[in-house]
Amino acid sequence: MSAKSTSRDIRTANRYEVLRQIIARSPTSRQELAATTGLSLATVATLVGELLDLGMLTEVGFEDSAGGRPRGLIAVNPSGGALIGVDIAETYVRVELFDLALGMLARAGEELEPGGKRPEQVAAHVAAAVGTVVSRAGVGSDRVLGVGVSVPGQVDRARGICVYAANWDWHDVPLLGLLARHIVHPLYLDNPLRACTIAELWFGAARGRGDTVVVNLGTGVGAGLALGGGLHRGVSNSAGEWGHTTLVLDGRPCHCGNRGCVETYVGAPGIMTNLRELSPHSPLLHPEDQTATIEALAHGVTAGDPVALEVLRTTARYLGAGIADLVNLLNPEVVVLSSWVAAALGAPLLNEVRAAVGRHALSRPFAVTEIVLSPVQTDPVCLGAATFALEGALGSPRRGHVKTVGRPATPRSRTAQSS
Amino acid sequence: MSAKSTSRDIRTANRYEVLRQIIARSPTSRQELAATTGLSLATVATLVGELLDLGMLTEVGFEDSAGGRPRGLIAVNPSGGALIGVDIAETYVRVELFDLALGMLARAGEELEPGGKRPEQVAAHVAAAVGTVVSRAGVGSDRVLGVGVSVPGQVDRARGICVYAANWDWHDVPLLGLLARHIVHPLYLDNPLRACTIAELWFGAARGRGDTVVVNLGTGVGAGLALGGGLHRGVSNSAGEWGHTTLVLDGRPCHCGNRGCVETYVGAPGIMTNLRELSPHSPLLHPEDQTATIEALAHGVTAGDPVALEVLRTTARYLGAGIADLVNLLNPEVVVLSSWVAAALGAPLLNEVRAAVGRHALSRPFAVTEIVLSPVQTDPVCLGAATFALEGALGSPRRGHVKTVGRPATPRSRTAQSS
Repeated sequence: MSAKSTSRDIRTANRYEVLRQIIARSPTSRQELAATTGLSLATVATLVGELLDLGMLTEVGFEDSAGGRPRGLIAVNPSGGALIGVDIAETYVRVELFDLALGMLARAGEELEPGGKRPEQVAAHVAAAVGTVVSRAGVGSDRVLGVGVSVPGQVDRARGICVYAANWDWHDVPLLGLLARHIVHPLYLDNPLRACTIAELWFGAARGRGDTVVVNLGTGVGAGLALGGGLHRGVSNSAGEWGHTTLVLDGRPCHCGNRGCVETYVGAPGIMTNLRELSPHSPLLHPEDQTATIEALAHGVTAGDPVALEVLRTTARYLGAGIADLVNLLNPEVVVLSSWVAAALGAPLLNEVRAAVGRHALSRPFAVTEIVLSPVQTDPVCLGAATFALEGALGSPRRGHVKTVGRPATPRSRTAQSS
Repeated sequence: MSAKSTSRDIRTANRYEVLRQIIARSPTSRQELAATTGLSLATVATLVGELLDLGMLTEVGFEDSAGGRPRGLIAVNPSGGALIGVDIAETYVRVELFDLALGMLARAGEELEPGGKRPEQVAAHVAAAVGTVVSRAGVGSDRVLGVGVSVPGQVDRARGICVYAANWDWHDVPLLGLLARHIVHPLYLDNPLRACTIAELWFGAARGRGDTVVVNLGTGVGAGLALGGGLHRGVSNSAGEWGHTTLVLDGRPCHCGNRGCVETYVGAPGIMTNLRELSPHSPLLHPEDQTATIEALAHGVTAGDPVALEVLRTTARYLGAGIADLVNLLNPEVVVLSSWVAAALGAPLLNEVRAAVGRHALSRPFAVTEIVLSPVQTDPVCLGAATFALEGALGSPRRGHVKTVGRPATPRSRTAQSS
């Protein structure tokens, strides 16, 4: 029985990989897909046939094949289904609806008031915003293939449970169960670190590149790992907790119970501590407001304020030592700085970090690692969350809910044996 | 052209994976191989056909298939070729010859004198020992599929160059070129960290398990990463340099130029420093002899010597914090303690390390991680190096050099299209 469930998982993974490649390079041919994915042409033809049957792809003509038989070209069918991505953050809920080519069709947001962060309240906000985007996009509810939900902290994907969210002190909250009271579409749960990493893989700095580490700098800190062309989740979906690796043994206390964690030096509250240690009464410091403090620092850096510049250098030194650890351990091709702190401090942070990594890392892996700011322009969490819905939908396609378009016969797809 | 070389690489990787699975579970069926590897049955049948043609496999009968057509069983053909693994260490060269089922047939060793570590001298020692094992095993020279060579430090596999070996101060030594003057068999270069990791994957603690980290504790320190069922090499084959990740920012100076590296606290010289800091004149300390010091510590721990026990606890605390970083970042199923320092300090070290990791790691990933001593009884470096030769041989099979055994027709393998 386990062998059977394994080969079903593999079939789902292959279907997902083929569709992902088609989204990345529409239009394309079965031959090109086989070369890119490493699957046999027979397997690719079968999977493409299934996706055509589901209306997720369309045939769009032929290309010349160097004198051989013309190759059929296939493309994603944008109207073959809608996907919704939900970004639950500490102060807001943002929801975006996408077509099947991951083009954004509608967006909605809800602020979370300080007193409104009980799970039931958050679920109600999400449900309202989901209703809004479906209505704004004008797609039939039956066209929505699924809703991917990102929530900060540790999640149990299989059971749809938010295991632990430090900032709200949520423990074992059955979030998908609460959402299912309001939302009829299939729901899929994960966290923003993994959503951002998928967004970089599909549309950002990791696209078409080798092993990539997505360093997320926000209130919390993590490192999403895109290894071997896919997301490295670890054995219980908690890989990437780089924020809780030790940078300074016996250093600053961390809310995780350990001391000297990377997060306590380079997360937004850690950067505030760096500022406080340097200049306790600096006007840059907004003691109760991380966002305002980081923005003040960013303005100070631009204006040449010496305290802001020194905080930037101190933070970059910690960050550089921590990123050097990732470079030495994982030997990635790309390191991406993502999330709001990286976006706010931008190029000045990037330049200082590059220099600091160079001082700490081994020269050989450092020489082959590119360090960049995330090029993703839209909310990467919503985008990544929508891909979780796509992955889920491919695991349990509901034919009745998807418009089936006409499909000409495809050579080979019915004759060859596949997985 | 790049698409073609990619699909050739993929075919080699698939052939290697199929043979690896057959070695792990001989005899087996094509159906079971398809379920295990995720390849289509057609692809598996083609690859098995090729390996049968090469004499690497044999057909060994049929099994019942729950009332269906009987399934043909295949097994590795031990006499289908010989593989040689070479472990070049700091004080010795060890060479082992294996049959194709990775059973060891012969072993030879050469001591390296302190004045005899120039590349030409080392190459001559390796060549002598290779000649000895071929002679002792009584296999024809034309049966040797290849020689895998492990050398400490950073290696350029493609060019066969030892880029940097800290302990001998070797820089850009064309080691395979030197060896090829003496040895006629195909040569493949890599380092002991990756050899040990492959040995754990095929025959040790990682066999049949999920993501595994192999923590190598010797003079140098590293973490071999077995992720997603295979070795994670990184973009330039230097992944695993955990010994040069920062544990104590601005801590002990390291020969890599950085400060506070894990290696300076838990490598054999680091453990000697831990002892010296605690008890500068301890009789356990053999200032010029790492091996004698580690053995004295091991005996002291067994005898209940308080200084030895305190050094063990101090070392385990550093090691536990460093391994907790691996647990948090990678969320592995298994962490294996390997190499001579781990073997010498054994269960007492393991117990202290487990407790220390528990104090430093996040509870969720820690709860699913098993920490064990390596169960591999033979030299894991020779074993792993032999698999590099096997992988290389599968990438460029030389039919003339391999005995071809008779092969009955296999259904499907000629009719289906494959990668």
